Amino acid sequence: MKKRRTNSKKPPTRGRARDFPIPLVGTTGPLNAITDVQGVEVGHVTLIEGEGRLVVGRGPVRTGVTAVLPRGKTYDPVFAAIFSFNGNGEMTGTHWVEESGFLETPVVLTNTHSVGVARDAVVAWQLEHRLYDPLASGHWWSCPVVAETYDGVLNDINGFHVKPQHVHAALNEARSGPVVEGNVGGGTGMICYGFKGGIGTASRVLPGGHTLGALVQANFGRRGLLTIAGVPVGQEIGDLLPEEGSPSSGEKDGSIIVVLAVDAPLLPHQLKRLARRAPLGIARTGGIGANTSGDLIIAFSTANPGAAGRIGSKTLQMLPNDSLDPFLEAAIQATEEAILNALLAAETMVGVNRYKVYNLPNERLGDLLAP
Amino acid sequence: MKKRRTNSKKPPTRGRARDFPIPLVGTTGPLNAITDVQGVEVGHVTLIEGEGRLVVGRGPVRTGVTAVLPRGKTYDPVFAAIFSFNGNGEMTGTHWVEESGFLETPVVLTNTHSVGVARDAVVAWQLEHRLYDPLASGHWWSCPVVAETYDGVLNDINGFHVKPQHVHAALNEARSGPVVEGNVGGGTGMICYGFKGGIGTASRVLPGGHTLGALVQANFGRRGLLTIAGVPVGQEIGDLLPEEGSPSSGEKDGSIIVVLAVDAPLLPHQLKRLARRAPLGIARTGGIGANTSGDLIIAFSTANPGAAGRIGSKTLQMLPNDSLDPFLEAAIQATEEAILNALLAAETMVGVNRYKVYNLPNERLGDLLAP
Amino acid sequence: MKKRRTNSKKPPTRGRARDFPIPLVGTTGPLNAITDVQGVEVGHVTLIEGEGRLVVGRGPVRTGVTAVLPRGKTYDPVFAAIFSFNGNGEMTGTHWVEESGFLETPVVLTNTHSVGVARDAVVAWQLEHRLYDPLASGHWWSCPVVAETYDGVLNDINGFHVKPQHVHAALNEARSGPVVEGNVGGGTGMICYGFKGGIGTASRVLPGGHTLGALVQANFGRRGLLTIAGVPVGQEIGDLLPEEGSPSSGEKDGSIIVVLAVDAPLLPHQLKRLARRAPLGIARTGGIGANTSGDLIIAFSTANPGAAGRIGSKTLQMLPNDSLDPFLEAAIQATEEAILNALLAAETMVGVNRYKVYNLPNERLGDLLAP
Amino acid sequence: MKKRRTNSKKPPTRGRARDFPIPLVGTTGPLNAITDVQGVEVGHVTLIEGEGRLVVGRGPVRTGVTAVLPRGKTYDPVFAAIFSFNGNGEMTGTHWVEESGFLETPVVLTNTHSVGVARDAVVAWQLEHRLYDPLASGHWWSCPVVAETYDGVLNDINGFHVKPQHVHAALNEARSGPVVEGNVGGGTGMICYGFKGGIGTASRVLPGGHTLGALVQANFGRRGLLTIAGVPVGQEIGDLLPEEGSPSSGEKDGSIIVVLAVDAPLLPHQLKRLARRAPLGIARTGGIGANTSGDLIIAFSTANPGAAGRIGSKTLQMLPNDSLDPFLEAAIQATEEAILNALLAAETMVGVNRYKVYNLPNERLGDLLAP
Repeated sequence: MKKRRTNSKKPPTRGRARDFPIPLVGTTGPLNAITDVQGVEVGHVTLIEGEGRLVVGRGPVRTGVTAVLPRGKTYDPVFAAIFSFNGNGEMTGTHWVEESGFLETPVVLTNTHSVGVARDAVVAWQLEHRLYDPLASGHWWSCPVVAETYDGVLNDINGFHVKPQHVHAALNEARSGPVVEGNVGGGTGMICYGFKGGIGTASRVLPGGHTLGALVQANFGRRGLLTIAGVPVGQEIGDLLPEEGSPSSGEKDGSIIVVLAVDAPLLPHQLKRLARRAPLGIARTGGIGANTSGDLIIAFSTANPGAAGRIGSKTLQMLPNDSLDPFLEAAIQATEEAILNALLAAETMVGVNRYKVYNLPNERLGDLLAP
Repeated sequence: MKKRRTNSKKPPTRGRARDFPIPLVGTTGPLNAITDVQGVEVGHVTLIEGEGRLVVGRGPVRTGVTAVLPRGKTYDPVFAAIFSFNGNGEMTGTHWVEESGFLETPVVLTNTHSVGVARDAVVAWQLEHRLYDPLASGHWWSCPVVAETYDGVLNDINGFHVKPQHVHAALNEARSGPVVEGNVGGGTGMICYGFKGGIGTASRVLPGGHTLGALVQANFGRRGLLTIAGVPVGQEIGDLLPEEGSPSSGEKDGSIIVVLAVDAPLLPHQLKRLARRAPLGIARTGGIGANTSGDLIIAFSTANPGAAGRIGSKTLQMLPNDSLDPFLEAAIQATEEAILNALLAAETMVGVNRYKVYNLPNERLGDLLAP
Repeated sequence: MKKRRTNSKKPPTRGRARDFPIPLVGTTGPLNAITDVQGVEVGHVTLIEGEGRLVVGRGPVRTGVTAVLPRGKTYDPVFAAIFSFNGNGEMTGTHWVEESGFLETPVVLTNTHSVGVARDAVVAWQLEHRLYDPLASGHWWSCPVVAETYDGVLNDINGFHVKPQHVHAALNEARSGPVVEGNVGGGTGMICYGFKGGIGTASRVLPGGHTLGALVQANFGRRGLLTIAGVPVGQEIGDLLPEEGSPSSGEKDGSIIVVLAVDAPLLPHQLKRLARRAPLGIARTGGIGANTSGDLIIAFSTANPGAAGRIGSKTLQMLPNDSLDPFLEAAIQATEEAILNALLAAETMVGVNRYKVYNLPNERLGDLLAP
Repeated sequence: MKKRRTNSKKPPTRGRARDFPIPLVGTTGPLNAITDVQGVEVGHVTLIEGEGRLVVGRGPVRTGVTAVLPRGKTYDPVFAAIFSFNGNGEMTGTHWVEESGFLETPVVLTNTHSVGVARDAVVAWQLEHRLYDPLASGHWWSCPVVAETYDGVLNDINGFHVKPQHVHAALNEARSGPVVEGNVGGGTGMICYGFKGGIGTASRVLPGGHTLGALVQANFGRRGLLTIAGVPVGQEIGDLLPEEGSPSSGEKDGSIIVVLAVDAPLLPHQLKRLARRAPLGIARTGGIGANTSGDLIIAFSTANPGAAGRIGSKTLQMLPNDSLDPFLEAAIQATEEAILNALLAAETMVGVNRYKVYNLPNERLGDLLAP
């Protein structure tokens, strides 16, 4: 039987970066999560089933779906922008985001080979819930945003275990409030710096009372590069490596999807500036954007509701460029902290062919970071 | 029963642009098709079933899948580049094309709401036929290129009638040789300038014996704008309009996917230059790249086989920029002619709710173009 | 003595496209010029001196400077965007336009090898007139937008005859009202389709009373490609060619700078959509964006005054994407008509080494276009 | 009298990062400079004159010019690409680099308001030395690459003290061998993290014997953000700040120009990947790419000589994407180290209005970094 965990049933996580002596800068929101941005909802469906030898189509299954809904279950497009730092990956729906300046659908994260099923499932979900704006003729169409990282080291990725109902469940069960991190949703089978990775999130409160949040699906990084607060943790913890020959052992160094949400009134070209900062947060943990890494970022603003209406000139708010620095800095900080949170929440996992990926060990990390 | 037409069983088409007194410039290849570029294969699966009132999930069905295989059924990535002229549409897989310079999968065209199923089906097809290059660890992943235009005016698009087996059939039955045009494959239910549109193709032979080919899935344009060889055909043929309220009557003016193939050794940045020329071919027929139009172009070169190998420095050929003009011009010409061929091959179609879209009438066109 | 013609002293021009039986679509503004957009000012300085053999540094001189001031002689940045259709040319200052969404300086057009002097001269002019917004510390800096096309066929381009005072004069004497076209300002020595080219302008009045204007510096095109209203004029007028060996005879096919102004409230990402349409206007006259052509476009909106202020959230207006089609179409139309106006205004010119470039002959054109 | 220091007369520099206990990763080339890449030449002209109160046009002068010549004083374009991480700055000539894939001129660095004079001076220098490739007609044109950072805090930037002869001298005196760092050339008056900044360089030796080099003109960063090897140096050294109200005190946080050179055969799209990594090196020192920062990167490859020839298909080498990781990592490392070298070489400077900017104090830094 497949276990399904959703956002509403919070499992224990191992810890968060703020539990450690890491000199993280900036003030977090109350949840230190992307859901600190008013209106943002997150839902996970986690698929864990079977163990032992890989039989394609049978399992073992270690995958899932994470959905981020910018304004919950309403249809009201948000201003958005994309940055592909290293495009060895997929994020669908980006041509229209770039062209229109709007994100019109949830952002769904899953594994590399389930992007298609997730994408069409979002269309069907919009249809079912009438979450779209038809033309006067009744016609409408959708180009959903679905992104991925590769979980084929732990998961029977070519078994195509993600089904439309899983996507619908992640969307339907999305809510505000705390976000489960680690081995959950789209992050279930992910590996980061040779430790167990997955979903992480963080937030920052900013001047004017604004909030910025980040959510990552972290599946990148070579062990030797892992750096936390300047400490070469990856050099210090040279054991607890996944077995030889795995992507995480050096061959495949990627990927990470970053979702940035902000409630300040940033326009699309300003959100692109925000998105372009996420790789600097990745860099603070040691990441380099390796060749095989799909490092794709989407940033959206929940300000300016109703901006996408079809008729009449819209009245908008815009933050001056000269006020952006705290947001740029927060985007870097929140991305960095979300990655650390993913590493600290994720638990050791055994996947296909009994392949084992260890979690980043709390105690040893604590020792390394101790002043 | 669903009728399935494939590339190998050539149905009658109504005509081609060269049958009319249109002063088309340039020398075509023997087939005047994208398959004049050595190695390129095209396959169609056409789904036409039912008639009468729309019952979502039941039909009527007027859709399909077209597959373009740059080097047939082999795995040998081609240099490629993308241009989004107006991004109100989907073309998946483009982040890695842009990043790597390579197209690693076929290009598949279908309807807007079936991009996902087609995308995952390409992954499964690669898996089945081992058309991929695994890492030493055995891992591989794929971000297939699948593009779309909206056929919901004639087709039960929200019935999701395209299934993986249709995609596999289009891929498997792809071949070189003549390409069926009009109401076929991904173009089955498309509308262009308020006439029946669909698939069209054309080619040009160039200095040095090189060949450039274009294939379009044409679903764009307001009637009043249609221009052929400078003649305002759309102004002259103001009748034969689809019924009021349809996207093609003015509300939705889009989209077109253009696939450009060339056998000359162009590098990715040069192919981007080629891709950027396709909208000028669209312009020659009256197109403006309307807001709701997804005008996405992919260009690839079949030269430099083996360029994507993982190991060792590769020896390549590159055409000088100073030799590109004939290719830039041919990209414009072939795009223009492929659109005209789509219009001239497509036949009047009745779709959902007995909605009828007329073909561009040959005789009246002939009269308008007569010297 | 150098002749200096400025915008305020209107010389006779030969004609405009609307004087001919060209079926140009759309309603022009009262001047059919970029200055129909409220606030836009244009100034020219034309440098014509000497004749006979080229002595680098001595002449003959056939060059100049054209300045387009989005809001006249005030400092109030306008939303703007750039599109490089074919980047064989220079437009400085574009990195900040792209990043900030604002154009903070005039747009200055001159010859290829005088971009630098013009660029620094704009800085000095801003300094002199205090047309900048200093930081509280008193510091300010500027990255002016200066673009070019190559006039070295007729002009002693390597004599560097454009001096700061010429740039200042073009800026200072800029005004609203009719814009002189043809052999004037930056367009003085330009060649277009093998005929004399130069500056041209046009405008369109749009729904909601908005106005869009285009100004081009046209120096592109091979004779054989020139097409007007679908008539292959370049094929029909095969004589009156510049002498062999000139860039315009086939070797160098470029360039064109297009400045688009609109008074509707378009945001930067929407202005980029506008800019991307200009090449379709070029295409309507036969242009292909040849390899050696620098086809660079800047589009700005004079709406939303005060949007660039440093402090506090700004209230803006934005036109919905669904209202953009008339603007996209107008950008194409106005670009096309501005090119035709440049060709029809420009007069035969004899330049360096008595090299002669003929104007497009009115009568023969009239005959070709006659119904 | 103006003091002019050039590359050939090496002044004492204070130190380099490798003199400190900074755990810098990777093997440097023999000079640890961009000139470790065979063929690359660097020349500086340093203008230091006057002291005391600012009289615009009189001084004090604290500026200069740095020239980087990819293949020395020859005309043989190199493959190149650009990345604008934060475009609040100027780098001319980039449209053609992006379009053609080639860098055809030296890269010249100077102050913000002298970009124009430098740009035209490069054209004149090419003319003088015949460093260009004319068309058969004898025509040629050039769009030089000139970039800048703002030195108006220490320098009479609006006095326009850089003259064509200074640019010519930097170009003519460029050579291979050690590169002077700190208060030299274009970096003369620059400020970095509130300490004296300027020119810095570094290199890495890579698999296959390849070399990658970086040269930066560093003028960015708020003091509090400066981080070296994970140590919050800027937090620890809170004194030695420039006076209040200067851009470096928080108002203006920018800019940095990064020039990356590599001798491995990377194509333009691969060089863009390299360029996109430089901001991660900036991030390692604490940089965030602030709003007012012009963070522009150019990367070029000296491999594939002769690739830009006009005639005939070119035979090229290309490194596989799968071999790029060491280069991506080296680009990050070399950028980071070049910034540190700039900070460590630069000496305390007193500029306009006796404004004083301190150097990063070696001893205190040594203490902070001590294990």
